[in-house]
Amino acid sequence: MQVGMTGLGRMGNGMVQRLMRKGHECVVYDSDGEAVTALRQAGATGAASLEDCVSRLTRPRILWMMLPAAAVDRELAALLPLLDAGDVVIDGGNSHYHDDIRRSAQLQAHGIHYVDVGTSGGIFGLERGYCLMIGGDNRTVQSLDPIFSALAPGADRVPVTPGRTRHGRTAEQGYLHCGPPGAGHFVKMVHNGIEYGLMAAYAEGLNILRNADIGKRQSEADAETTPLRDPQHYQYAFELPEIVEVWRRGSVIGSWLLDLTAAALENDPLLTQYAGRVSDSGEGRWTIVAAIDEAVPAPVLSAALYERFSSRGDADFADQVLSAMRHAFGGHPEKLAARADV
Amino acid sequence: MQVGMTGLGRMGNGMVQRLMRKGHECVVYDSDGEAVTALRQAGATGAASLEDCVSRLTRPRILWMMLPAAAVDRELAALLPLLDAGDVVIDGGNSHYHDDIRRSAQLQAHGIHYVDVGTSGGIFGLERGYCLMIGGDNRTVQSLDPIFSALAPGADRVPVTPGRTRHGRTAEQGYLHCGPPGAGHFVKMVHNGIEYGLMAAYAEGLNILRNADIGKRQSEADAETTPLRDPQHYQYAFELPEIVEVWRRGSVIGSWLLDLTAAALENDPLLTQYAGRVSDSGEGRWTIVAAIDEAVPAPVLSAALYERFSSRGDADFADQVLSAMRHAFGGHPEKLAARADV
Amino acid sequence: MQVGMTGLGRMGNGMVQRLMRKGHECVVYDSDGEAVTALRQAGATGAASLEDCVSRLTRPRILWMMLPAAAVDRELAALLPLLDAGDVVIDGGNSHYHDDIRRSAQLQAHGIHYVDVGTSGGIFGLERGYCLMIGGDNRTVQSLDPIFSALAPGADRVPVTPGRTRHGRTAEQGYLHCGPPGAGHFVKMVHNGIEYGLMAAYAEGLNILRNADIGKRQSEADAETTPLRDPQHYQYAFELPEIVEVWRRGSVIGSWLLDLTAAALENDPLLTQYAGRVSDSGEGRWTIVAAIDEAVPAPVLSAALYERFSSRGDADFADQVLSAMRHAFGGHPEKLAARADV
Amino acid sequence: MQVGMTGLGRMGNGMVQRLMRKGHECVVYDSDGEAVTALRQAGATGAASLEDCVSRLTRPRILWMMLPAAAVDRELAALLPLLDAGDVVIDGGNSHYHDDIRRSAQLQAHGIHYVDVGTSGGIFGLERGYCLMIGGDNRTVQSLDPIFSALAPGADRVPVTPGRTRHGRTAEQGYLHCGPPGAGHFVKMVHNGIEYGLMAAYAEGLNILRNADIGKRQSEADAETTPLRDPQHYQYAFELPEIVEVWRRGSVIGSWLLDLTAAALENDPLLTQYAGRVSDSGEGRWTIVAAIDEAVPAPVLSAALYERFSSRGDADFADQVLSAMRHAFGGHPEKLAARADV
Repeated sequence: MQVGMTGLGRMGNGMVQRLMRKGHECVVYDSDGEAVTALRQAGATGAASLEDCVSRLTRPRILWMMLPAAAVDRELAALLPLLDAGDVVIDGGNSHYHDDIRRSAQLQAHGIHYVDVGTSGGIFGLERGYCLMIGGDNRTVQSLDPIFSALAPGADRVPVTPGRTRHGRTAEQGYLHCGPPGAGHFVKMVHNGIEYGLMAAYAEGLNILRNADIGKRQSEADAETTPLRDPQHYQYAFELPEIVEVWRRGSVIGSWLLDLTAAALENDPLLTQYAGRVSDSGEGRWTIVAAIDEAVPAPVLSAALYERFSSRGDADFADQVLSAMRHAFGGHPEKLAARADV
Repeated sequence: MQVGMTGLGRMGNGMVQRLMRKGHECVVYDSDGEAVTALRQAGATGAASLEDCVSRLTRPRILWMMLPAAAVDRELAALLPLLDAGDVVIDGGNSHYHDDIRRSAQLQAHGIHYVDVGTSGGIFGLERGYCLMIGGDNRTVQSLDPIFSALAPGADRVPVTPGRTRHGRTAEQGYLHCGPPGAGHFVKMVHNGIEYGLMAAYAEGLNILRNADIGKRQSEADAETTPLRDPQHYQYAFELPEIVEVWRRGSVIGSWLLDLTAAALENDPLLTQYAGRVSDSGEGRWTIVAAIDEAVPAPVLSAALYERFSSRGDADFADQVLSAMRHAFGGHPEKLAARADV
Repeated sequence: MQVGMTGLGRMGNGMVQRLMRKGHECVVYDSDGEAVTALRQAGATGAASLEDCVSRLTRPRILWMMLPAAAVDRELAALLPLLDAGDVVIDGGNSHYHDDIRRSAQLQAHGIHYVDVGTSGGIFGLERGYCLMIGGDNRTVQSLDPIFSALAPGADRVPVTPGRTRHGRTAEQGYLHCGPPGAGHFVKMVHNGIEYGLMAAYAEGLNILRNADIGKRQSEADAETTPLRDPQHYQYAFELPEIVEVWRRGSVIGSWLLDLTAAALENDPLLTQYAGRVSDSGEGRWTIVAAIDEAVPAPVLSAALYERFSSRGDADFADQVLSAMRHAFGGHPEKLAARADV
Repeated sequence: MQVGMTGLGRMGNGMVQRLMRKGHECVVYDSDGEAVTALRQAGATGAASLEDCVSRLTRPRILWMMLPAAAVDRELAALLPLLDAGDVVIDGGNSHYHDDIRRSAQLQAHGIHYVDVGTSGGIFGLERGYCLMIGGDNRTVQSLDPIFSALAPGADRVPVTPGRTRHGRTAEQGYLHCGPPGAGHFVKMVHNGIEYGLMAAYAEGLNILRNADIGKRQSEADAETTPLRDPQHYQYAFELPEIVEVWRRGSVIGSWLLDLTAAALENDPLLTQYAGRVSDSGEGRWTIVAAIDEAVPAPVLSAALYERFSSRGDADFADQVLSAMRHAFGGHPEKLAARADV
């Protein structure tokens, strides 16, 4: 099939390459001309503008947007006058599902079909395939099946789930029509919420292992510092790269994230190249808001999100309030100790 | 090699079978005679008592205990008079690493070597191999290498970590000498702490997906109930088994736990056979205590643990206090609503 | 001044009484005729309908709504045709501040002034006075000063803050113009978020005290149950009413909530009249959403909210997922133990 | 009565002064000679050494230690040879209750009575009185009643709890015999755990208020930054000192900690004198450990503790792990953005 792709960053670029490998024809556009050139050399049809991109597509057109969430509405506004009834617009980025519901209804008024696709796989997707969570109307989603099938990993990368009887469902290939508009991004949102939780679980555990030598370090005894009661219990100097490596085999906590962590620790055992300011790209936040709307407790996913906020200094004022209170009632001056003596 | 195994529950039984498959000789004992008989029929030497078990082992003896943590000290006390200097006792269960440190010193006074092995893999270990985290002195641990190697999964089940240069380390086979006495159970403890966090991340996410239809359900409007502001955002009826299945392929959150969840949901999509009273077997608790001793924040791992406590009713009195306070200041009678109308 | 009050529940009733005590004239309406009758007997002018209520007010009218948040928009729609430019509508309930921003703009188009007032004090407000957090335009808020002043506690109930120089500000009387429309309910929202956190802190602490006798209770030793390592450390049978009472005097954690808790425990030391299903009325949720929008970590306030969700059974499916996972990897059947043997 | 006091820091000094005001005789010692001199000038008997201090006390001696927890065992070892059967040693500091249980048994073997007193009140205790939570045997505690009564606030500072019938209990005076050895510090431990939770609730809430102007600040739109969906909802520039002031009157969240916060914000509205590195002095940690031993969920108290750890940089390695993971799967370079553009 023929697909137009706008947004040729890490994800868009990989998806175009994978689509072409599977025999699909891609017309590509990005405001960054070099990104277009690179894919043209790889066999795609390059477009000089959004108009150009649309004009090179055969009707009914299929236009896949792979853009930062904040740029989608602007792009859609630019696209709308260029499209015709029957065309399909796919948002494969990380949009909020509320926006999908709104946009789908707006485009439907013009006879244009809107499909939201939550895409997981990151920079490894080109080789591993992309996990696709899809929202939209049945007929449109079905019409795009060859594209989803090409992007998805396929059935052979992972063993069949024992006991599974519903063979033939596309979930086994790595793509799934999850429901009406917004359903794809809703499921992707929760997917990322879970991702934050998983990442934080490993990160906290590794931090505990890393500090298992705290009994060896010197510690002060004053009213502001809690003495370690049993320093002899914290005399371990663990080799984190080896521990993560051993967990990859046979343990209950094996996962792809753990595989990646092993590689990262292999290359940089102390992770000194990272300062630890952790970004979040929205889905983790929206997951919590959904949990709250549904009255579903999500303490783990929330804690994971807040860890990221804190890593960027956003708890600072709260901490100043705590220091001010301690100073007020206990006369405790703030202890500006270096980390070593905590 | 010859190994004595006491404690033939789910784990001990599987380990004996795996050891025998790899050519090791096993002398087995359990207070449950049927467990002994079953393994005798599979080729093990059955023992009628602990004494009998020890007497059938060649010196220096290797005795592997696979017991509930609470039973280990009693067993060790019974073993001590039966053992000789140079013998090795292995605790492969879920002991607290504090106990390992203590026991190791006690046995050392008798010339007996103590090795602690954190074992992960569950009932699948027989086929997949067991991930082994080992603590003890170098020489003893090294002398047991054929046993560890037989129990571990081996290198071929998981791809090599990209960039890895330290080939030949046993972590690549799925077992690792982590450090001095207690190090094995320390690492296993944190492993389980992480496991609780991972499990809770998935569980919370699935709960959010499951309640994504809350906008369809009837809701009251009174001062005690928060109305859902945008019911149209919660109209999704997701098929959880398919969603978990699709996540197994190409997504960032793929893991062995997710594979197991897919199988569980395949067999029982609403999980009605489970009431949701979740046990914890100690390591998750000890992980948090270690984090606190080290002053390492562990909000995600703690939240996962507390979810289990709450699932067993242990928050009830705190909740009664909250209801009493609300009643006191707001005159809010407690709302004994059925779940449907929350 | 003359004030119309609609919504004569616990809060509205108390506020009318307090206003009348301070010499204000109240016209009151509620769909529950008995509530109207009761206040008419106390000196208010009763209205038979909303129209009647409005018609009895002198222009520019002041109409105070004290309604469940979910009922405000309906009431405003009914009021709008009855009001004239220059009239003032006050929402003193627990509206979401987003709604204030929207309503204020809508009413402004008709020349009607909208003021949002977050009101704290509960059923004690009649005697203690109400803490008022106010949003709206300067001139309108200022014009209502006599009403706010009458409802507020006044300066003499609490000592002056040491070092305070900005005397004359109304905060010292217990009411404050916090900012433009929505500011009152925003501050009230965060106030309630904090309230949830404070309540949960006490509740958790009391639960820990209550279970300090756990070492005396019988406990099983099996692989599914964590044995208590040091039962001798948990032999205390604390008298909670006395402990809360002693904390009321001289301690750092003295508060009005603690005073109320003392009274509740005095009357019912085991709080057996409460099942522990804790409602939440919205502000706690909205506080977390605001925190997330602002990227401010709010782990304590979130945990307090989730405790309430869990108390109503909303974690159940997540817990079932956990049990299913444990069963899958460890063969752990779910332990349906009675609380006593946990 | 006559009391010996060793440890004349902020707390010990105030307690001596309060005891003397109530007519008790104090013999005081501190390794810091100036602290002794200051109290001698105020009327106390100064001692030149611990021996000197003990020798100036009439038998049966009453010796109150007001020391950092880490210094108590050393002091007790020095005291033991100086004391006689029948003497009483009081630990009024922040000892771990496990230590009380151990010490009490040790001293009992010498006929010496050990009493643990958790003391709250901080630097305000001199004027307000100290809230005393007491553990020990009945007879000894009773014999010290005049001292406890002198230190405690007395009944008149706080209104009687409505419905209270058990008049005459000392809790109404602000001191309470909570139970056997360790009970005093157990209750104080939980008291401080609650204190951390209360403080964090206020701190988080104030942080949310402070950032309510985030919609006014510039924000980037890229794949690493979540755009604020509704900047118009975050346009508030709140005056925190006034808001805290208004909450002191009539609101549900009034408390002594809030009073102190008002004073702190009055003097330094942006709290710029505090960097926000928040110490913890042990009880908060021990509270969580007790909760875990008891299987009592304590998510709020834990989150409050972890906030303190994080404020001191103890989450840094975990955050580096998160950044490394994000880099690995998404190719996300770490965003070293200044706070302004988060």
